[in-house]
Amino acid sequence: MLYFEDFPIGERRKFGTRSVTEDEIMGFARDFDPQPFHTDRAAAEASIYGGIIASGWHTCSIAMRLICDGFLLDSASLGSPGVDEVRWKKPVRPGDALTLFGTTTIAKASTSKPDRGVLTNLMELVNQNGEVVMTMHAMTMIGRRPA
Amino acid sequence: MLYFEDFPIGERRKFGTRSVTEDEIMGFARDFDPQPFHTDRAAAEASIYGGIIASGWHTCSIAMRLICDGFLLDSASLGSPGVDEVRWKKPVRPGDALTLFGTTTIAKASTSKPDRGVLTNLMELVNQNGEVVMTMHAMTMIGRRPA
Repeated sequence: MLYFEDFPIGERRKFGTRSVTEDEIMGFARDFDPQPFHTDRAAAEASIYGGIIASGWHTCSIAMRLICDGFLLDSASLGSPGVDEVRWKKPVRPGDALTLFGTTTIAKASTSKPDRGVLTNLMELVNQNGEVVMTMHAMTMIGRRPA
Repeated sequence: MLYFEDFPIGERRKFGTRSVTEDEIMGFARDFDPQPFHTDRAAAEASIYGGIIASGWHTCSIAMRLICDGFLLDSASLGSPGVDEVRWKKPVRPGDALTLFGTTTIAKASTSKPDRGVLTNLMELVNQNGEVVMTMHAMTMIGRRPA
């Protein structure tokens, strides 16, 4: 079990990889973000993107799954108050394989609740060509290691 | 069709409402955020949340659907470079009905590409009890009205 104390500041760690299919991209977008460049192949080809791209929220959700499988499910996570500076830097396209890198940038122990603290992790999602497709600064409320 | 020029600064507009079921919360979480307080009723009841709550990314995705249906699909949207200060302020629980409010806070015309600009909208998601459950500052790249 990983606690607040187990995330050294400044160490960039590599987590898992997940690929995304056109069906998944279109399915997510039909539910949550039905803009034509996510759901309609012809419209996407005529758009500034030149083809189907994933909803940014789908990309965030894929990153979240890699965060869960990478460390969060084995941690004393208590949820998150929020995320700063989500940046969709490059399109995510069908067939892309996305790898998560995480760097803890801030570790702030709670003063009011001594059993927990908040970590800020810079999360970077990188595609199979080494391009950073998304970055975000994600906060995680997490338990402190019991004495 | 709504263009860059059609979003007056500072006017808070009410958009649609969407309810969320326990099945939807658990289904989204099984795919993307399988933390026990999203997927396991007994574990959720024993957690600090006292019951199943939605993944924050599910809440963002619901907000995105309300953004699409509220105005984005009728606009010259060109996608988004990112979002700032996502804040999950209150848990979203099964049965909650979430209403979107949007306020344009920044409208920045592109200097390099005169056919477009970037809007920043403060998005607020409010539940059936009037509680703000999420806020975010979402950027939208959007076409300018043709001359």
